[in-house]
Amino acid sequence: MDYGEKALEVHRKNRGKIEIKTKVPLKTKDDLSIAYTPGVAKVSEVIGKNKQKSYELTNRGNQIAIVSDGTAVLGLGNIGPEAALPVMEGKSAIFKEFAGIDAIPLCINTTDPKEIIKFCKYIEPSFAGINLEDIAAPRCFEILPQLEKELSIPVFHDDQDGTAIVVLAALINACRVTGKVMSELKVVVNGAGAAGISITKLLLTQNVKDIVLVDSCGVLHRGRCNLTQAKKDIMEKINKQKTCCGLQEAMYGRDVFIGVSVGNLVNEKMIKLMNAEPIIFAMANPTPEVKPEIALRAGASIVGTGRSDFPNQINNALVFPGLFKGLLEGKTKKITDKLKIAIAVAIAYSVKPSKNKILPLLTDRNNVEVIANTIKKFNG
Amino acid sequence: MDYGEKALEVHRKNRGKIEIKTKVPLKTKDDLSIAYTPGVAKVSEVIGKNKQKSYELTNRGNQIAIVSDGTAVLGLGNIGPEAALPVMEGKSAIFKEFAGIDAIPLCINTTDPKEIIKFCKYIEPSFAGINLEDIAAPRCFEILPQLEKELSIPVFHDDQDGTAIVVLAALINACRVTGKVMSELKVVVNGAGAAGISITKLLLTQNVKDIVLVDSCGVLHRGRCNLTQAKKDIMEKINKQKTCCGLQEAMYGRDVFIGVSVGNLVNEKMIKLMNAEPIIFAMANPTPEVKPEIALRAGASIVGTGRSDFPNQINNALVFPGLFKGLLEGKTKKITDKLKIAIAVAIAYSVKPSKNKILPLLTDRNNVEVIANTIKKFNG
Repeated sequence: MDYGEKALEVHRKNRGKIEIKTKVPLKTKDDLSIAYTPGVAKVSEVIGKNKQKSYELTNRGNQIAIVSDGTAVLGLGNIGPEAALPVMEGKSAIFKEFAGIDAIPLCINTTDPKEIIKFCKYIEPSFAGINLEDIAAPRCFEILPQLEKELSIPVFHDDQDGTAIVVLAALINACRVTGKVMSELKVVVNGAGAAGISITKLLLTQNVKDIVLVDSCGVLHRGRCNLTQAKKDIMEKINKQKTCCGLQEAMYGRDVFIGVSVGNLVNEKMIKLMNAEPIIFAMANPTPEVKPEIALRAGASIVGTGRSDFPNQINNALVFPGLFKGLLEGKTKKITDKLKIAIAVAIAYSVKPSKNKILPLLTDRNNVEVIANTIKKFNG
Repeated sequence: MDYGEKALEVHRKNRGKIEIKTKVPLKTKDDLSIAYTPGVAKVSEVIGKNKQKSYELTNRGNQIAIVSDGTAVLGLGNIGPEAALPVMEGKSAIFKEFAGIDAIPLCINTTDPKEIIKFCKYIEPSFAGINLEDIAAPRCFEILPQLEKELSIPVFHDDQDGTAIVVLAALINACRVTGKVMSELKVVVNGAGAAGISITKLLLTQNVKDIVLVDSCGVLHRGRCNLTQAKKDIMEKINKQKTCCGLQEAMYGRDVFIGVSVGNLVNEKMIKLMNAEPIIFAMANPTPEVKPEIALRAGASIVGTGRSDFPNQINNALVFPGLFKGLLEGKTKKITDKLKIAIAVAIAYSVKPSKNKILPLLTDRNNVEVIANTIKKFNG
């Protein structure tokens, strides 16, 4: 199927993917007197005296905002807030379908980190959580910690934390299937944006000692100029060999390739430079860094992509519905590294892994409960 | 029925009044490949090249924001953004039920006009229109015109324009029923906030020459100090007699009382000071300035309130669903005085008026079409 053309057709026919639904009847004069004035005044008065009541007397308790500035949308890059809308509506639809959560897409017209922080503070009274989405590095590294500090509701940047969690889960199971040992893996991460840096950080907590991080100019090393602070910080913690080269050379002798960059960067020859039976996670969307058939032909043992139409879909969508369900139901605010690891382990051990199934399917509703319960137990 | 208690019960049971509904299936791998990655990338690419396509390929074309800072909620005043949520959810439910429009409540944590203006500019890419709500005067007078200038989507402040339109419609029919002549009416408007000033302005376009505007300190007149610019501006256009007094004296010899203030301000004696068979619109919510039974006992010919549970409900809710339906379908941006008058006339002449029915009922779905068609014809 040509998913692109089919998607255009479906989006045009339905005018997008989400709408509002009312939860109360509005047919009679009495209905209106209860849902609106005069009755509603009593509800407002009660919340006016105790703001926390907004969680139970309005939809706030089940409602989150998906905030994006449209600067890092899929592998398409900075295509603007309007063009980010279909992706955010897709996330909203997944949130509702899989976790019963009402997520409002807010694609906004500013890329200034300070303004995005202010924006999130302004909307706090209407929501129980904020899912930051597709905000490009390095701005996202400034925004997330500041909001975690300033807001009373949980904030999650899916491209950072969601991707790191799902990659760790996939890697745990790739090790279970192949018998490789996590701490001995030689890893190359291609893409040093929000996802690449967060994945690297989370792998470091798992004792993965040999990681090389590559951006569009090549491997991060001390000789590079004009590196952002985020890249400098992570570089200090990795690349012990002080390697200086491009992606092709960086793949030499590696056990794992993790791609969070753009499509069609990796060919058969490059995979053959890696150690025997390498693990390939080519997660660029919509086009992976290398097609699964090419990677397998080149000797890969396990191949995953970000897409639903290939085996081993390694996609944040496996994480965010259950994660917010757990956060909202468990009234958890902070998403610590320990919590991320606990979630990744829970996802991994919820399946009996095989080469073509290192992760649960996106359509597997049990996975949402696994994640939500992990958070609630972690919290309790 | 005790609507307040019933409202609390209904809000608690349902956790508010609105939720998200998905418009596409998300059951299979193919469904996900169409609604999300990889298919959605094509939709984003198309919009990336032409932002206008966001109106047809996402829900944007049918989606508006209800933006409030919670500073002038019903007659309850400045109760904060959380406490404004139930009212905004009520509006959202009415928007959906009566006009099929998806309205997202955004109750925000700033009362600074410049920040509210910026906020609305930031969310513009996600919406087809903005309904400002319950933002107190005089800040709302700064916000609305600035947004009309800076945004490419229609902006409507319901407390200003919505109230003015519905009051004009009600007054047209009150004149039809009583035989009074609009241009000869002596009017007292109590409440010089967003609604009171906007009503006064719209009545001036109808040649109502004798209007006295009263705020909580008494009649606006040249001797008053510390008046806001908005009050000064409107004062220059009315109060020819340079009257200086309180509400009670201001009611003497008037044909019409229009209350957009707070409950229980007016008693039988005050109504008896008015001209014979006065028209009383006591629109404070949830408690009217005077109860209909008291006003009628004092000799009123026609009494209207803002509530659904008395006859003659004069409430913005009669206007905003049809108004936005017309704006979105007619691709109309600017809500001019001429358009407001056309809508008021259309509402008035859509019913055969009587003392107990000067306006269509809120539950009368035909009214939404009457307003929407008026806007579309006005535009075309």
